[in-house]
Amino acid sequence: MWYNFGMIYEHERIDDLQIKGLKLIQDPSLFCFGMDAVLLTSYAKIKENANVVDLGTGNGIIPVLLCGKYNPLKVIGIELQAQNALLAERNIVFNHLEEKISIIKGDVRDIEKLLKPQTAQVVICNPPYKKAKSGIINEKVEKAIAKHELNGTLEDFIKAASFILQDKGQLHMVNRPERLIDTVMLMRQHQLEPKRITFVLPYDDQKPNLFLITGSKYGKPFLTVEKNLVIREKNGEYTKEVLEMYRCKKK
Amino acid sequence: MWYNFGMIYEHERIDDLQIKGLKLIQDPSLFCFGMDAVLLTSYAKIKENANVVDLGTGNGIIPVLLCGKYNPLKVIGIELQAQNALLAERNIVFNHLEEKISIIKGDVRDIEKLLKPQTAQVVICNPPYKKAKSGIINEKVEKAIAKHELNGTLEDFIKAASFILQDKGQLHMVNRPERLIDTVMLMRQHQLEPKRITFVLPYDDQKPNLFLITGSKYGKPFLTVEKNLVIREKNGEYTKEVLEMYRCKKK
Repeated sequence: MWYNFGMIYEHERIDDLQIKGLKLIQDPSLFCFGMDAVLLTSYAKIKENANVVDLGTGNGIIPVLLCGKYNPLKVIGIELQAQNALLAERNIVFNHLEEKISIIKGDVRDIEKLLKPQTAQVVICNPPYKKAKSGIINEKVEKAIAKHELNGTLEDFIKAASFILQDKGQLHMVNRPERLIDTVMLMRQHQLEPKRITFVLPYDDQKPNLFLITGSKYGKPFLTVEKNLVIREKNGEYTKEVLEMYRCKKK
Repeated sequence: MWYNFGMIYEHERIDDLQIKGLKLIQDPSLFCFGMDAVLLTSYAKIKENANVVDLGTGNGIIPVLLCGKYNPLKVIGIELQAQNALLAERNIVFNHLEEKISIIKGDVRDIEKLLKPQTAQVVICNPPYKKAKSGIINEKVEKAIAKHELNGTLEDFIKAASFILQDKGQLHMVNRPERLIDTVMLMRQHQLEPKRITFVLPYDDQKPNLFLITGSKYGKPFLTVEKNLVIREKNGEYTKEVLEMYRCKKK
């Protein structure tokens, strides 16, 4: 199929990522990126020249943000859904990041066919948060796959991460607090020892609604629960920490 | 050995628990209770007429506090160290709680010989925080046992809790964040599903230094990470939440 990579369709929209002029084409009928992608890429702190893999890359938001915030050697995004994978490709071209980012259309459950073992220093993953049988699934199938474990469970993603990570390589993930126990159990089962957790609070005096977690391949058990990340001040404005993420100074 | 239960020895001290006139005899050469016992008993929220077991009761602080804060049917404290178990007995008599609290001198690893299975609605446990081989162990052996896993690992305590708890019965525990992963893994392995976690922060803008966790026997996986419990205000005074614990209104 021929595709005009410079063209935007009427039903699409372009979001300014506010980092080095990067922009993202999004299709509102598919899963659109949210703040979790911004939080996860800021939290990850990628070292210069790292090889990074993003599992379930969607429209490519995480690889694009990583290239805006850091200077990785290469980012590979893996995406199962054809429509998303194509949009991700277009976003890479749109941002002139063809030399940094590659998209592989494929299934994390087939990771052994897609990538070599122990070749990445970092894996990033913003997995579907909900179990297949939980919640109401009445939306468009592409959106449902991104939100529910219809194609790829949490374990599939963690297993894939463990396969491609080098010794001491790191998996950075985001999920909801109700999945914390599943997440840490599965990480440890797959030799990714949880080393660092940050809870994300909408407001200072509320419960967390997300957590960010780092697992280290063959790491020694010792967890640090970090200072909470609070999103908004009492008056509803973003906190200093969040504004800094959007300012995206290179670290 | 004959022991005068009303008598206090010169090397001992009496601490006012500030609840209904309850007091605690402590021996500074043994492990003395700290704020974690106060936090854990407030967090636990024991229902009227519950059967409660405290694993590793030390000088009996937790059973005594529970009787001050709630109205359990019966609290059994299990303690391995003879000196502690005796002190716990004296503390019960000292506070006229003989009808509510019993102390069993015994080892949590022998729980099957000490108590019947599935007989408690609630188990409380403030276990040794440190692994046997971590940190410096140069203190008196009784203190070291209370702080390090010399006699009874985290798994021994969790396994014992699972043995004595009824279906849907709850284990309430406290530990340090670096042991969070071990704790939740072991709880799930022993059919105690983690349902509720509260992180304890010394100050609002610091990392947690403790967490409180509740596991439910045969519970369904769904965790709630609760609002943080902050100990002190910026000016160093206790927060409203902590002051309320010390005021100890009956809930």
